[in-house]
Amino acid sequence: MAKRQLKYVGHNVARVDGIDKVTGKAKFVGDITVPGMLDGKILRSPYPHARIGSIDTTQAERLPGVVAVLTGADLADLNPIYNGRPVIAMNKVRYAGEPVAAVAAQDVASAEEALSLIAVSYEELPVVTGIDAALKNGAPAIHEDKTGNIGTHERVVRGNIDEGFAQSEEIVEDLFTFPMVYHFAMEPHSVIAHYGDDDEITVWSSAQHPFQVRGDIARIFKVVPAKVRLIIHYLGGGYGSKSYTKFEPLVVALARKARQPVRICNSVGESMVTVRRHGARVRIKTGVKRDGTIMAREATIYLDTGGYDDNGPQVTARSATRVLGPYWIPHIRTDAYQVYTNTGSAGSYRAIGAPQVIFAGESQIEMIAARIGMDAAELRMKNLLRKGQELRPGLKGIDADLAASLRSLVRESGWKKALRKKNPPVGMACAITNAGATPVSVAMIRMQSDGIANIVAGSTEMGQGVRTTLTQIAAEELTLPMEQFRMAGADTKVTPYDSSTGSSRSTTLMGTAVQKAARDLKQQFLAIGAQAMAVQSKQIRVEAGALICGESRLTFKEAFERRFGKGSGGEMIGRGEAGPEITNNALPVFWEVGMGCAEVAVDQETGEVTLKKFISVADVGKAIHPEHCVAQEEGAAMQGIGHTFFEQLIYDQGQLLNSSLVDYRVPTFSDVPGEFHTALIENGDGPGPFGVRGMAEGGILSVAPSVCNAIDRATGVRIKDLPLTPERVWRALKDAK
Amino acid sequence: MAKRQLKYVGHNVARVDGIDKVTGKAKFVGDITVPGMLDGKILRSPYPHARIGSIDTTQAERLPGVVAVLTGADLADLNPIYNGRPVIAMNKVRYAGEPVAAVAAQDVASAEEALSLIAVSYEELPVVTGIDAALKNGAPAIHEDKTGNIGTHERVVRGNIDEGFAQSEEIVEDLFTFPMVYHFAMEPHSVIAHYGDDDEITVWSSAQHPFQVRGDIARIFKVVPAKVRLIIHYLGGGYGSKSYTKFEPLVVALARKARQPVRICNSVGESMVTVRRHGARVRIKTGVKRDGTIMAREATIYLDTGGYDDNGPQVTARSATRVLGPYWIPHIRTDAYQVYTNTGSAGSYRAIGAPQVIFAGESQIEMIAARIGMDAAELRMKNLLRKGQELRPGLKGIDADLAASLRSLVRESGWKKALRKKNPPVGMACAITNAGATPVSVAMIRMQSDGIANIVAGSTEMGQGVRTTLTQIAAEELTLPMEQFRMAGADTKVTPYDSSTGSSRSTTLMGTAVQKAARDLKQQFLAIGAQAMAVQSKQIRVEAGALICGESRLTFKEAFERRFGKGSGGEMIGRGEAGPEITNNALPVFWEVGMGCAEVAVDQETGEVTLKKFISVADVGKAIHPEHCVAQEEGAAMQGIGHTFFEQLIYDQGQLLNSSLVDYRVPTFSDVPGEFHTALIENGDGPGPFGVRGMAEGGILSVAPSVCNAIDRATGVRIKDLPLTPERVWRALKDAK
Repeated sequence: MAKRQLKYVGHNVARVDGIDKVTGKAKFVGDITVPGMLDGKILRSPYPHARIGSIDTTQAERLPGVVAVLTGADLADLNPIYNGRPVIAMNKVRYAGEPVAAVAAQDVASAEEALSLIAVSYEELPVVTGIDAALKNGAPAIHEDKTGNIGTHERVVRGNIDEGFAQSEEIVEDLFTFPMVYHFAMEPHSVIAHYGDDDEITVWSSAQHPFQVRGDIARIFKVVPAKVRLIIHYLGGGYGSKSYTKFEPLVVALARKARQPVRICNSVGESMVTVRRHGARVRIKTGVKRDGTIMAREATIYLDTGGYDDNGPQVTARSATRVLGPYWIPHIRTDAYQVYTNTGSAGSYRAIGAPQVIFAGESQIEMIAARIGMDAAELRMKNLLRKGQELRPGLKGIDADLAASLRSLVRESGWKKALRKKNPPVGMACAITNAGATPVSVAMIRMQSDGIANIVAGSTEMGQGVRTTLTQIAAEELTLPMEQFRMAGADTKVTPYDSSTGSSRSTTLMGTAVQKAARDLKQQFLAIGAQAMAVQSKQIRVEAGALICGESRLTFKEAFERRFGKGSGGEMIGRGEAGPEITNNALPVFWEVGMGCAEVAVDQETGEVTLKKFISVADVGKAIHPEHCVAQEEGAAMQGIGHTFFEQLIYDQGQLLNSSLVDYRVPTFSDVPGEFHTALIENGDGPGPFGVRGMAEGGILSVAPSVCNAIDRATGVRIKDLPLTPERVWRALKDAK
Repeated sequence: MAKRQLKYVGHNVARVDGIDKVTGKAKFVGDITVPGMLDGKILRSPYPHARIGSIDTTQAERLPGVVAVLTGADLADLNPIYNGRPVIAMNKVRYAGEPVAAVAAQDVASAEEALSLIAVSYEELPVVTGIDAALKNGAPAIHEDKTGNIGTHERVVRGNIDEGFAQSEEIVEDLFTFPMVYHFAMEPHSVIAHYGDDDEITVWSSAQHPFQVRGDIARIFKVVPAKVRLIIHYLGGGYGSKSYTKFEPLVVALARKARQPVRICNSVGESMVTVRRHGARVRIKTGVKRDGTIMAREATIYLDTGGYDDNGPQVTARSATRVLGPYWIPHIRTDAYQVYTNTGSAGSYRAIGAPQVIFAGESQIEMIAARIGMDAAELRMKNLLRKGQELRPGLKGIDADLAASLRSLVRESGWKKALRKKNPPVGMACAITNAGATPVSVAMIRMQSDGIANIVAGSTEMGQGVRTTLTQIAAEELTLPMEQFRMAGADTKVTPYDSSTGSSRSTTLMGTAVQKAARDLKQQFLAIGAQAMAVQSKQIRVEAGALICGESRLTFKEAFERRFGKGSGGEMIGRGEAGPEITNNALPVFWEVGMGCAEVAVDQETGEVTLKKFISVADVGKAIHPEHCVAQEEGAAMQGIGHTFFEQLIYDQGQLLNSSLVDYRVPTFSDVPGEFHTALIENGDGPGPFGVRGMAEGGILSVAPSVCNAIDRATGVRIKDLPLTPERVWRALKDAK
């Protein structure tokens, strides 16, 4: 029998949130007014490392309009530590910008004035800036309970690394560095909190992971999770910067003291010290046979995690695996270290722990290719993991056809033709990541008597289009038009559990849950239809919102009324879950694939590098919304262009020097490559609905190595440090002469 | 095979809300503080019938602390009429106490002061007090569009009434009256409303029917129902006084104008003019054969509905059926009329439209028994409807064994022994009501990873114990301890649709939905267990929260973790609905049965009547919580004692004279009969879970007729008007001499 034509999935339908967004109706935390709401401001430490002597808040508290001043002393009855950091500084500060006190007042001006009236006495401590300083013998201890400023250490081993190098005919060893960068979501972190009667806590936040924030707040404030309600409207971008718990607990503590709702909206500068990507120093050593067979890889990765953990431990752990690239390597030993420094904490950022190490690994692959005189694409093809093969012990085998992606990249980029020229300014990079996406997602579709079907799912809409994608899946399953669906933001009191929105997981995992919920609802309609038509469910065809069997036709609306009576209300509820069984308990749930090819122009006079062309390949399994997939991939590539060419947070003695858009440059439309194209691979081999696998992180990975590979191929100069400022490139070109 | 012993159902378990209530932790609307909340007060018309000239609010608006003043002029953009009444008076007032304006202010004192500054000019109109005045030719029209002050007219017909009387050998015809009475729930009506950004309306109310109020507000304010959120905590009693929409729309309109949340808590006096029971005048004519066979009944019922409809049309319609009693009567014609008068509106009150007419019918049955010299119990037994027999066309046949109830009443009351004495001071009454309970109820049970199972059901806890009952049903089905369940109040944003809490419907209908939700959840556990144990679901026994098959045992907790991973969250959701199929689309969903027997002492000197003994019989099908059933039945009887002996709202020229507990006497513990006993009939023949049928309305029905029957049997004096004040009884005794 012919397969049913897909009507919504695979089509570039209009965004379900599009009109609300372009008309300004979409609400972000900064747009929300909660009755009786105060404005809050945070007093931040001017010192990167200091002991707090005393805090005198009396003057601030006397200021008219001030309702409450919060300090560490107010946390005595709480569990004040989460993700390795305190709700507000207690005894000590570990980065410049760390919250020391907070004020809730009738208006922002009063709150700001009150900050200036808080007297804090500090005893300055020696400052640790940068990985090298942190690791030095006798370096000041940022956390008294950690040895040598090291947090997590992750090691990945397979085979025998010494044997691996012994069997190698060529060995290369290099040191790469990667800057600290900031996500720069359009909307800075914003939180409203209310601590109500009976310890009922309500938080409106720009948080990606409502249920995880709920859990943290419950633990901190010693209440059951059901007492904590996270309400998430739209997010103005996330990219990981709003994953996990940020300063929500501080606002809750302030609201608890003020006994009124309080809103705090970070400035961009404040957000920059709240979370960033880990800077990195990566020493990497790879051994190959002369025929290009990779035999061994050893890596030592240091990640600058800043003053506190945030998600640093996971970032560290991932990097130790992700440095391996998409290759079969028989002998492996990688070590990744989380290093504390006196800077704002680093956490999740699109493809955690990957761009730093893939920059290193994929730069080195082309250095090896050059060394052994082999086409870099062929070298890669020779070593690519095959379907089912294990990247490293303990992880599920590869679930995608990597060679298909590479063949597509070679074809789409015109690689072979380019190589025919002398010193062609092209380079490529291939990467996979073990997606951090983990179960569980649970969803409901609740249909009311007016026919409106509410998709109740905890996925956060932060611009990635998840509401549209989930609606497409539900519409396809239920054969109902997109317009008949609604999907609101997460509200942990209402929305079923979802572990997070991040790690490219929502389409695969929440998509599965929504698909199952839709099928459950459809089954209920089929049961009503079967009874009404006196046939078996399986004899009924579902088409355009109607149950059809022979000459009989019953619309869903009629079936609903048959069930509940006409005009009498009622509600039909479908539910679905995506548990670990969707991949037989194996992790990762899917492998994410990102490959790219760059063509550059290098101005030998000024050191300016222009990205002329960038071709990206993403294996998405099935594109639910092809335009969204391409936009995600190219958006990721643009962020890659940022850290490749100019983005970096510059710290001097623990002070962030470039905390504004004037000083911190992000990619703009003028940075879009002249030729910019994404190819989607759709083999239907992902674990999600319609064969989808997660995407949108992969696109960020290839830019830096493919650009540096292109520069090397064009100029013979290998650059191992980012970003590629004209000065750095100019110096490198000059040194090489 | 032996039936499983019930562990929770049928047992007098502790109330799940008991501790919260006795410790004061349970929140009622008056306990809730919404941030930024203002206090509201209503300016009420001093005139029962008047045209409004002008309203000048300028002085009130200028008063410090006043935020908004609402009048009819603010409703221009709304649909201001619901249930036949305006949100606030427009042009005309129809009862003394009708809202004319409302003020929202920083505190109650300012709001009250502001009321006194509002200048309203009225043009008084002639006042209609009482049914007779309303029906008089040329009576002033209360509603210009209604003829003769009549609203709904309901007629029930079977056979040929003239023929029925022609075939009768004895015919009695009498006129009975019943007073207007007030429910006197401990908590007066209270509402908090907030009209937020984007027309998001939130209402905390002491409303019995959250979804119906949601619907009314949506229509009035021209928004989709999803924009309106009703949050119901506990109710301090309802009895119908909080059914349907009361002044919630007024508070929403005031909050809309104030742009801040507003709370209005009615005083008792204000609640008394907000809703009451219909006073009635019932002319009833019954014809019998001399052997006691009832041949015909004709009735003309006038119900004093006050100034506006509220639920008057339904009350009227029900009374035309309920006047028939529990008997097979071949020839019927009853007419019920809803009559407007210039008094506060009447609406639902426990067993709507029934006590008024059953007082008449069951008084008359004993007058007939006396006339033909037959034992009144035997007369009733002879005519009682048998199972399956139709009371009247269009309704489902009787689903209960009425004779069993009557036999129980005769036995439990010692009827036969009492009759052996001369002039025994005993009387009885038998009643059934076509329960107003209608589908639909929908429920979910949502189990979190901590094992807590949330019963998500829209039934309102107003003291009747519904949360306990539903928890018993869920606990029984899921074999989990009561302590593992939670049930919060309704929140229309969260809770699935439920048509109402009233008409004795929740245990039967919501109980069915919860039972199905529990079974759905159990099936999901069984599926996990079947997979884990590699057996079929049906081979698994569920016991004490574990799945057992042979030597294998998997707790629900283990099954949950097997599904979602350990410590990773997740949520399992069971759902269930009670649609019209639970009684094959036939209405009523069940027949409610109430019978009672009274023994009195009459003080011939003072006219004081003492209720020495009252025996009540309730056919509950199955008592989920026997103590609750008895308490409900006896609570209902106590309210019956109220309207029988002393309760009545006294209006003089449209002014309510006794609007406080000082002047309006309600039953107290000193009114509890010396001997007070309830017998429960449990034949398992109800349509609800475990064979339950609704109860708790029946207990109110028998008191008045059985007491008047007892007085007549003891003294030879028949009283046809209530309440039985000593003066009225004394005059009747004196007139008879």
